[in-house]
Order: sequence, then structure tokens, then C-alpha cells
Amino acid sequence: MLEYASAGESHGAALYALVTGLPAGLVIDRDALDALLRRRQGGYGRSSRQSIERDRAELLSGVRRGRTTGNPIAIRVRNRAGGAMPPVTRPRPGHADLAGVLKFGHEADARDVLERSSARETAVRTAAGALAALFLRAFGIEVFGHVVRLGPVRFRAGPLDARVRDASPFHSLDPSADRRAKGAVDAAARAGDTLGGIVEVVATGVPPGLGSNVQPARRLDARLAAALMAIPAMKGVEIGDGFAAAGRRGSSVHDAIRRGRNGKLVRPSNRAGGLEGGMTNGEPVVARAAMACRVLTASASRAISCLCLACRLE
Amino acid sequence: MLEYASAGESHGAALYALVTGLPAGLVIDRDALDALLRRRQGGYGRSSRQSIERDRAELLSGVRRGRTTGNPIAIRVRNRAGGAMPPVTRPRPGHADLAGVLKFGHEADARDVLERSSARETAVRTAAGALAALFLRAFGIEVFGHVVRLGPVRFRAGPLDARVRDASPFHSLDPSADRRAKGAVDAAARAGDTLGGIVEVVATGVPPGLGSNVQPARRLDARLAAALMAIPAMKGVEIGDGFAAAGRRGSSVHDAIRRGRNGKLVRPSNRAGGLEGGMTNGEPVVARAAMACRVLTASASRAISCLCLACRLE
Amino acid sequence: MLEYASAGESHGAALYALVTGLPAGLVIDRDALDALLRRRQGGYGRSSRQSIERDRAELLSGVRRGRTTGNPIAIRVRNRAGGAMPPVTRPRPGHADLAGVLKFGHEADARDVLERSSARETAVRTAAGALAALFLRAFGIEVFGHVVRLGPVRFRAGPLDARVRDASPFHSLDPSADRRAKGAVDAAARAGDTLGGIVEVVATGVPPGLGSNVQPARRLDARLAAALMAIPAMKGVEIGDGFAAAGRRGSSVHDAIRRGRNGKLVRPSNRAGGLEGGMTNGEPVVARAAMACRVLTASASRAISCLCLACRLE
Amino acid sequence: MLEYASAGESHGAALYALVTGLPAGLVIDRDALDALLRRRQGGYGRSSRQSIERDRAELLSGVRRGRTTGNPIAIRVRNRAGGAMPPVTRPRPGHADLAGVLKFGHEADARDVLERSSARETAVRTAAGALAALFLRAFGIEVFGHVVRLGPVRFRAGPLDARVRDASPFHSLDPSADRRAKGAVDAAARAGDTLGGIVEVVATGVPPGLGSNVQPARRLDARLAAALMAIPAMKGVEIGDGFAAAGRRGSSVHDAIRRGRNGKLVRPSNRAGGLEGGMTNGEPVVARAAMACRVLTASASRAISCLCLACRLE
Repeated sequence: MLEYASAGESHGAALYALVTGLPAGLVIDRDALDALLRRRQGGYGRSSRQSIERDRAELLSGVRRGRTTGNPIAIRVRNRAGGAMPPVTRPRPGHADLAGVLKFGHEADARDVLERSSARETAVRTAAGALAALFLRAFGIEVFGHVVRLGPVRFRAGPLDARVRDASPFHSLDPSADRRAKGAVDAAARAGDTLGGIVEVVATGVPPGLGSNVQPARRLDARLAAALMAIPAMKGVEIGDGFAAAGRRGSSVHDAIRRGRNGKLVRPSNRAGGLEGGMTNGEPVVARAAMACRVLTASASRAISCLCLACRLE
Repeated sequence: MLEYASAGESHGAALYALVTGLPAGLVIDRDALDALLRRRQGGYGRSSRQSIERDRAELLSGVRRGRTTGNPIAIRVRNRAGGAMPPVTRPRPGHADLAGVLKFGHEADARDVLERSSARETAVRTAAGALAALFLRAFGIEVFGHVVRLGPVRFRAGPLDARVRDASPFHSLDPSADRRAKGAVDAAARAGDTLGGIVEVVATGVPPGLGSNVQPARRLDARLAAALMAIPAMKGVEIGDGFAAAGRRGSSVHDAIRRGRNGKLVRPSNRAGGLEGGMTNGEPVVARAAMACRVLTASASRAISCLCLACRLE
Repeated sequence: MLEYASAGESHGAALYALVTGLPAGLVIDRDALDALLRRRQGGYGRSSRQSIERDRAELLSGVRRGRTTGNPIAIRVRNRAGGAMPPVTRPRPGHADLAGVLKFGHEADARDVLERSSARETAVRTAAGALAALFLRAFGIEVFGHVVRLGPVRFRAGPLDARVRDASPFHSLDPSADRRAKGAVDAAARAGDTLGGIVEVVATGVPPGLGSNVQPARRLDARLAAALMAIPAMKGVEIGDGFAAAGRRGSSVHDAIRRGRNGKLVRPSNRAGGLEGGMTNGEPVVARAAMACRVLTASASRAISCLCLACRLE
Repeated sequence: MLEYASAGESHGAALYALVTGLPAGLVIDRDALDALLRRRQGGYGRSSRQSIERDRAELLSGVRRGRTTGNPIAIRVRNRAGGAMPPVTRPRPGHADLAGVLKFGHEADARDVLERSSARETAVRTAAGALAALFLRAFGIEVFGHVVRLGPVRFRAGPLDARVRDASPFHSLDPSADRRAKGAVDAAARAGDTLGGIVEVVATGVPPGLGSNVQPARRLDARLAAALMAIPAMKGVEIGDGFAAAGRRGSSVHDAIRRGRNGKLVRPSNRAGGLEGGMTNGEPVVARAAMACRVLTASASRAISCLCLACRLE
């Protein structure tokens, strides 16, 4: 069973995460790890803070000679901009500030709340997710994230080509829409504003039967929904056709089961997003998450952690 | 800490649930309990099976003289239509059948999977949710569910008036749209088809600070998302403005914090759906879930369980 | 992952348990199940109530045609002696009465506490443990319990022979001591008193590596200790040489590792009771639990549940 | 709910722990924290490694201006003796080596197992336990540990006087036995051997009703047993009279409930060690743990963590 917890504030010296449950012998691909953290920091229109930082995940334990030992892995991602910060006495809308001040009794300074609720925490979550992605890769499962919407701009879907996505400043698969997206971001920035967006995560190579229908809490769709909604600023999650399915007839939301030429079962469509009855059905798992306020393009990377942390073997 | 688990198959003698963690002394309002189960079974266009049954939740333990004792509560909801059933050898699309047969190795008969994955399980989940609702009510929290979409028909929002909703065969707050909904259901039924839909759940009277921002797994938005997605056939969950927020600017998705005349903080809008930073902020909690295939109007009732089971005190 | 919870009071109509996580296809050996429940009720000097009852575990779900389906298993063990009972206004020492009355606020009647804390609950726990034992047996693991002490009488250890144990009214492996034990029980009974005792549980055929050293909460010794201490009236748990090891030198508490003729590693002793570093080491797992007040001879049976419920695979 | 996990190997740069769930506003008493770590390292006959080190717990997050913020607390305890270490190819008896090598497949070097299973991990567990102790102290609960046995030497019990204990090189309350203990340790050391022992932990000021009788897994006695057994080398745990109770009659193991002069309930004895029915009963909680091989005198300190981590509020 994989377990994950993190600690650290956005202006402290570093963020820490602790991952327990990775098996021994997994080769740690540092390049892949660093690439994911880099992708989290990329993206057009990031705040200056993001562009200055260059995060690096230090694996403080549980790894020896480039392989996991089976022991818990402590991860550190240092913060650049530390030091004393002025108190925050005016809770900001759209943040944890007000709720947190009321919950914890931090009347004089909301900083104790907001520094923990900052999206900065996702740096170390991304690192943990990268470890999870390496684990999934050992089973032939690849997780691919890309941005499908940015404010008013919808990006068309395309083949899951990492080069196309990584060449796009918006991490989209639709270069033709990038110019419009640039315009939308610039216009929002000029107005001192930000944009929301939607990220899609696709896991391919997933065997059938992960997750379980036997108890509500064991369903993989429920766990994925929790993992995605737990990313700061996410306000919606859908699987497969998601909300669009609600407007259709039943005959248009299911995926027929046919027997192919080789005798294998094939499914001509994947409206269910690879999940039926709370279990993977062998088709790619497709999930989307909607973020209010600003698409951190990294959400795709971060979401990688979701599948693995959510689908702990039973 | 509230814990819930269930057992039972759709054609077995009964469904069972086990709820641990309700405090002692809670008055069990049988009428409220029965009303919720009745609402689950109501709704225009339910299958004949649903209309024949009249579920009743038997509380087999943990209640004495009309009050909870603090002990675990075992719940039984009997099935009417039991008995031997023919084997299912052709897995149905849109169900757990195929994934389950592959997972558990039930080659000869998918019945062992599908009878557990049936929406029938939600009868006992609704009963557990009703207990949770009684618990929340003791703190002045009321949970109200209603249907906001049925296939092509969108119901307008209105005041949260239980009489209006309960008078509607679609459990909507918009009587003017019920005729169109009836037409849509009838048309689908004539075509041997079904309709999807969206249910909205609103919790009022919620104090600020439930859930926590300190660890991803403790966020109430994540837990609510899991609880709603764990209802069979749900493919999407959103909180507050949800997916719509992804298309807007940041300035249009937040809720200003103002000081009212009496010195209290007031918020002119509730786009966040009562959840900021994974915690309740004192505004009503608003969540929606999208169901593929058929709106079981009871989803609203079932979702009541989500808030309470999800927001276990920390 | 195996999960277990129970419900029910000692004078209610029945006890219920819910076991989730047994795989599909496990053959349910009814005779073995009933034998374990019978053993729980046997033993010299049991109260009259125990001798009248003849418990039977009904499996209400999750089993079909004599095999598990992978679905949760609801278990019912009916109580014979139900009905209205007089209030208990005087908390009894050595029971949950006082603590429970203070915790739950049951000033007028301690019955709500004591009926849940009764050793009667172990009837359904024994049934769940019997399912766990069947699961372990599928891997060649056998769990054997016997009484090693009864008040002043110590039973000598002997070969783990079920016939010897089952022929003993004290479930011991030492027939020569049974007469003395009978005398001790009779003397205590005449004085209106009871006796404590110690039960030993041995699991053979255990592969190395169950449990884990990587995190305190994953150690199998810790889980076994919790499972055994959670049986009512248990006040002590030890593994292998246990408390006796505290009085010895280090060189006398370890088990040498030698290479046998066939090249396999052998260990001439098993002072560690099969657990090193919180993991099984391939030797038999040996645990003992001390009960205050009265040896329910069934403790051995009940403890069977511990190993399996505790050693959930990781 | 308090949660704890740790990471780090004994020859790595540092050990890490992550504690989630402490409330905001708790004053961190650095002196008390350091004193507990110092006590862990003291004791007659510790290995040279222990005497060289002087551990210090760095609180890397979750604390600001000397108070907890409510955020997770990351703890670091640096190791002095780091660096490359030779491979261990011969598994040592009495350690996790063999089981771990078989579990994780570390054929070439047992070091990956043993460095995680080392008692060194308890340095950071002690630090986490110290935080838990500060939390308990805020409710007037004090946890006091002392050594009651060291190999052949039994220390008499006495008043819980920290000065007496801290003046003893064996952390006992019986100075008269210290000379004999010194002789026993010296004799064992000359023979290249070590001694086991028993540590007792007493928690005073405990309110009634912590823990719960309603579900086996919620019993505080079960949780304490797990927490104590999870300390490396522990082979036995008992509460109150423990194993001795097994040899007595029921009338000699219970604690009468009397009404005192002021009308309050009083209990003339505390054989139950403060726990009845899995709940605290208002008397001091008394637990003992038996260690094979060597009494780390610090076990008392470490065990402090047990009560708090185990008795998470429900």
C-alpha cells in the first residue's frame, strides 16, 4: 500500500514529503523525475516567482545506488524565497485564509494558513507523483497529462504525443490554438487577472480490475476523484464523458463489448473513461479536472500521482 | 470518526450496512428515515421493480428506546425479489460486469459481480446517509438534494423548498420544466432507452473549518468528491461553479469578503460552493454530481450521506 | 486488504460482522467453521448460559454455492437469550461499565455499555476469524491455539495435536494436568470466583516476509499485539520468549542462523517466535495472551483471526 | 487525528519524521524536547556510538514563533556517523536481516534492511513522542517512564519522582539496586553480551473515556499494545497486573468501585492499569514492555509517544 504525506510552508526553507510502500529494486530515473518538476514550473504566463525557481527533488532516504530499497522515501524540495514575511491580516477570497483563520484561531496573521495552502506544496507532491509514475511505468502503464482548456480557449484533442505537448507553452496537443491562448493570457494579465482551465490525464496500458466494486471506499473512480480534487483550486472532476454524459441517453454513454478477429474483446468507444463499476476495464483511464483562477500547467504532472496513490493494490 | 461499510447482493435476502461512530443519545427520527428511503424509490419513470418495492431500514443494533447508544448500528434493508437467478454470461456495457469478471475470475457467471455493483446497494447506503443526516441536523446542518438536469432538460434553481421538490415527479425545484422532462423520459422509454442527469446537494448551516488544508487526504472537497463519485454510474463531480469556473477569469470565480453592518463578515456570492482550501468557509456547501444513463432521483438523498461520512471531525 | 467490523449487543437478537477483502473462489468449509464456534463454547466450567447456547454462523452475503464471491461477507450469530433486561445502575469492577457510562453519558443504565463490551461479541469475531483461518489454510498456514495456563495450573507444551487438545476439557496439550485444573476450577467456583489464564497461538507454514519493518504501524508483531489485546479481558501479550527474554542475556534470546545439509538456512531455536524486525522469518509464529478473570477456552479460536486480520498483505 | 510516519536509515545523513494533526497554538518547550532526546541517549553501558552522539530534533515545519501552527511538523534528527558502509552479507540473528533480505530480495547486502530496522530510528520517534507528550501535558496528562527490570535485577517501584529516576544510570526508581545492576551490566559486557529488561510507563491525569469499547480496533489497550510492540526488540506488553493476573482468581484482579467521602467514586486499587473495556477509567494508565537483548533506557521516553499516538480522539 502506497502512503503519502507532506509538510512544509511556502516560505519556509523547504517542503518535505514522505512516501511509504514503494517496492525494493525500482530504478530511479533522475532525468524523468527532474523533467516532471520542470514541467510543473513551465507554462506561459507563470508568475515571476515560478520562473526564478528551478526545483529539484532530493531523495533523502529509501534510495541507494539508484534503486529503491523498499524503505520510506523522504523527499525535500528547497524553497528559494524564504525568510521573514509580513503578517497577512486581510484574508483573501478564493483561498484558505478565512476558513483557516477561523478553524485554527490565527486571528493576528493568516500566514500560518496560507503558507500551507499555497500551490507551492504541489512541488513536493509532483515529486512524489513522479515516483509513483516510475512505479506504474514498470508495469507498462504510462500517464500523460495535457491542458484541454484555458479560460475561453478550448484545445482540440490529438494523439498523445509528448513532443507536441512539451513544445506548447500551454502544454496542449493543439498548436493551432496556442496563439489564441497567448492572447487570452496576455489580455487577462493586462487586466491584472488570471484564467482557469481544464487538464486531462490519460493512463494507458492499464490492466483490467484495478480498484474494486465491493465497497464504496475501494472504488478507483472515487479515489481518483479525491486525488484530483485535493489539488489546490480544483473545483470539478470528471471521468470519461463526465458531465456531458448527463445530457445524453443511456445508449449513447456506454461502450459496446465486441469480440475482435483474434477472439479478444474489443470496445469501439471509451466513453466510460476506462472505469466501470469503480474498476479499470482495460481501456485507457481518462480523467479531467477543472481549476478555478489559473491553470497551473503542471496540474497534468501533479495528477500523475493520483492514479498510483489512488490505485493501491488490494 | 464515522465509518461505513455495506454487504449484500441485489437478489440476496437483504442488504446490510454497519455504521460505527455515531455518538450516544441521538434521537432516531423514524419518519425522517423512512421518508428518505421513500424518496429514493420515487421518481417518474422508475423501473417496475422499484415501484413494487417499499424499502424499510431496520436498525438491528446500536439503538435503544429510540436513541443511539454509541454502539455500532447494523442496518438491514430486505430485498423483495430474491431467489435463484439465471447466470449472466454476456457482460453488459456500462456496468462492472466485464471488469469484475476479469478481476475476480468469474468466467461462468457475471452475476457475482453485478449483484454487488447494482444500484440496489444504495438502498442501504441511503439508510446510513439518513442516520448521518440526523446527526448533522443536531448541529443545525440541513442537507437538501434536488435534480437540476434530466437528459436534455435543465431545471431552473429556486428556493430550497422541500414541498416544491417533493411535489415534483423529478425532484426538481422547477415545476414549469416538469412537463418537458416527462416528455423526454417518455420518449426515451419508448425507444427502450434511458436518460442521464445531474443532481445538486446543498448543505446549509455549516460552520466554518470542517475539513482541513494541512494534508491532501484531509481536505473536505476531496472527501466529498470521493463520496459522490462512489455512487454507481456517477461520472462527474463539481463544487460551487465547478467546470464553469474553468472558463472564467480569476476575478469572476472568487467570493469577496466584506464586513457587514453588524461587523460580521459577509460574502455576496458563493461561487466556491462553501469550500476554500479544502475547508468549509461558513457558506452553504454546494456540490453536483453527474450520472450517466439514468438519474435515480434518489441520488440526492444518497448524497446526504456524503457530507457527514466525509467530514469526520479531526 | 482484509477489514473487519462488528455490531450487536449481548441481549439483542443477534450479533453481526462484516468482513471485506476475502478473494473470490475460496471454498467455505462449513464443518471447520462450525467446529471453531463449538470450540469457543466448550470448556470446563463455562457459565450455564454458554452451555445452553449452540452458536451457528450464518453467512448472509458474499458466498454462493459454497465459495466466496469476492463480495463483503455479512455474518450473523443469533443470540438465544434476548428480550428486555433490567437496568444496571451499579457499574461492575473489571468491566467497561464505569468508563463507558462516563464516556457516553449513560447515567441511568450501564446496559448500553456492557452489552456491547460483553465477551459475547467474540462469537461473531470467532466466525470472522474462522473465515480468515480458511484463507490462511489455502496458503498452507495453519493456526493452532491451546491453553497453557489456568489460574495456578501450568500445562506443559507438547506436539500440536488437535485430538489431544480437543479431548481436554481445558483445551490443553497436557492431559496429566487436567485433573489439577479441574480441582482449581471447582474450588474457584465454590468460592463464587473465577480463574484467569494464558492461551498460546502457533501459526505454522508461515512464509518469511509478512509484515514490514519499514514503518512502525506496518510491523506484524505490533498488529498481532493489538489484535490479541483487543479480545476482552486480555491484559498481556507476548511473542516467542516474551517477558522471559527480559531476564536473559542477549546471547540467550536470539536464534542462530545455520546452513543445513541441503544448503537451506535452518534455525535451531525459535525464541523470537517467528518474528524479527516486525516480519515473519519463516519459523512458526508463536504468541501468547494473558486473560484476567476467566479463561474463555475459546480465546485460542478467537485468536486465529488475529494473524490473518493483522497481516494484511502490503 | 494524530498521524506519524518516519523515514531514514541509520547511516544516512539524517532521520525524518512527519507528524500531522497537532492543533495550533501549542507551545513548544524546547528544553523538554531536548531532555527527552538526551534521556534516550543516556544510561549505563550504552554503546560507544550512543555516547558520542548528542541528538537534537530540528522542527522543520509546522512551528512558528515557538508555537505549533496546526500544519504538519517535519522533524529531522541528524546522524553523526554517516558515510559509505561495507555490505552485510551474513544476516544476524535477532534482527530483521534475514526476514528482510527474503522479503525485499536484497541478496547481496542486508544493509538496506538493517539500517532501517536499527534502533536508531527511535531517535526521531522519541522526538515525535515528545511533541505528543507536550500535547498531553496541555490537558494535565503526564507520562512517566522508568526501568523496572534489567536482566536479573528487579528494581522496586517507588513514587514517580523524576529526580530519582534521572539520577539513576538505569533510569530506575530504586537507587539501592543500581549497584547490582551495574555489576550485571559489567559482567555481561565482559562476556561480550547484553541484557534485556522491562520498562514501565505510567500516565497520570488521564480522564475517563479515552479509547472505545464499540469496535475492537478502537480499543485503547489494543492501540497501546501495538505502539509498544512496535518499538524494536520488544517481545511483550502488559497492562496493569498483566500476565500476573492470569495466575489469580477473578476476585483478585478487579478494582472495587467505592464512593468516597466527597461523593466521588474511588478505586482502592489499580490492577487494571487504568483500562477497562478498552477505555481509560480515570485511574493512571500503567503499561510495561519487555525488551529482548538490551534495555535501551530510552524506551521509557519513546513509549511516551504511544499513549498520545494511540489515543487519537474519536
